[in-house]
Amino acid sequence: MPRLKAVLAYDGTHFSGWQVQPEKRTVQGEIGRALGTLHRMAHAENVTASGRTDSGVHAVGQVVHFDSQLAIPEERWPKAIMSLLPDDILIQRVEVVRDDFHARYDAVEKEYRYYVQIGKNRDVFQRNYTHHVYTDHLDSEAMNKALEKLVGKYDFSSFCASNTSVVDKVRTLKLAHVQPFAEHTLMFRFRGEGFLYNMVRIIVGTVLEVGQGRRTVEEITTIRDGKDRRLAGKTAPAQGLYLWEVAYRGE
Amino acid sequence: MPRLKAVLAYDGTHFSGWQVQPEKRTVQGEIGRALGTLHRMAHAENVTASGRTDSGVHAVGQVVHFDSQLAIPEERWPKAIMSLLPDDILIQRVEVVRDDFHARYDAVEKEYRYYVQIGKNRDVFQRNYTHHVYTDHLDSEAMNKALEKLVGKYDFSSFCASNTSVVDKVRTLKLAHVQPFAEHTLMFRFRGEGFLYNMVRIIVGTVLEVGQGRRTVEEITTIRDGKDRRLAGKTAPAQGLYLWEVAYRGE
Repeated sequence: MPRLKAVLAYDGTHFSGWQVQPEKRTVQGEIGRALGTLHRMAHAENVTASGRTDSGVHAVGQVVHFDSQLAIPEERWPKAIMSLLPDDILIQRVEVVRDDFHARYDAVEKEYRYYVQIGKNRDVFQRNYTHHVYTDHLDSEAMNKALEKLVGKYDFSSFCASNTSVVDKVRTLKLAHVQPFAEHTLMFRFRGEGFLYNMVRIIVGTVLEVGQGRRTVEEITTIRDGKDRRLAGKTAPAQGLYLWEVAYRGE
Repeated sequence: MPRLKAVLAYDGTHFSGWQVQPEKRTVQGEIGRALGTLHRMAHAENVTASGRTDSGVHAVGQVVHFDSQLAIPEERWPKAIMSLLPDDILIQRVEVVRDDFHARYDAVEKEYRYYVQIGKNRDVFQRNYTHHVYTDHLDSEAMNKALEKLVGKYDFSSFCASNTSVVDKVRTLKLAHVQPFAEHTLMFRFRGEGFLYNMVRIIVGTVLEVGQGRRTVEEITTIRDGKDRRLAGKTAPAQGLYLWEVAYRGE
């Protein structure tokens, strides 16, 4: 049966994350249900993503795969699925791929972005889309120096949620950088082959303390080498995080 | 009893508009309840706004008044109220005003803004905050020429919802203009002494047809002078509209 790869965006605000859960509104649940209806099945279709996203986390370029024998041309697929989806999920594009393509196992690199807004007043329109830090200033230079300490191949145990079953916590971070995005808004970018559970949010939460002068750049090296989650800072909230892009071999 | 004026912003997405209604989540309902709690009353406090906003319509600078004998300094008022409010309402500032200040009757000018996003793909993160028009191009020059026909003192019956009890439909529009705001996004600005029910949304809906070449600039004059709602275009959707500012004498 032909395999299809789809790139999708979603506003994570009103979802209990990606993965299907009983009685919960999830992205996988909505897409599976829509594909089930499209295929005139009594049950939801199987959809596999590049990885899960948590409740409140957004996606701009999540990648999924599913199988279908429907004779829909590639360019018509997005509208066909979206006609059955709620308006907080957008199907960007769909293409036919080789039968053994796997959205999760074939991914070679991912990019996450994290948006932080600063200022004494919160922005009521951005509350679900950026993390608001109540300060007038964050030291971007210090934060970039701290982020540099995390670029490379390391055991990221200090930056991984403690309630995880993953044993090997060595990952390679290729890019970790913060830059101005808009007035009062900073954008963090992270690229790597793979990420641990809550890794980006714990890094951001810790580095924001450097930006506020509550930790030094050197402490980041100590935290990294200590391999203990208790050394790092708070997990930054979900609403600032976006799964931005998933790259595959040959792209 | 001292009278207070408050400037507030709200994300209209999850409100059934400003005005209190039984069983509905409204901005007036939430603020009245919060002030009631703050004053240790069993019932909600009275709060009067410069005007109502409809379900889904946003505010950046809505103005309200209420009375209070609480000895809270002006600068502490915003946090005091907000501690009892949901996070889609923001109190920008509070000041003591003269006892007979009235948020509605003393308003001398209002500004509304309306945001339109264009493009073949909708933006999942902007669906509640802009009106998406599925086109590659809108003719801003033609739209501005059309808007010019509406600046001045006119009977705006053609641009007023038909289910209104207002008799005098003469209003003075001081500014009506559209300009680029961001990539693929246009911002309409309207300033006037007062606005009729749905006036901005009907003007935008009609002028967007000019921008798409479906009506001529001259037709706007015909519609205006016809004084009949049926001549104008569709009411543009609520989510693009923001009550931006309310001005009072002496400001």
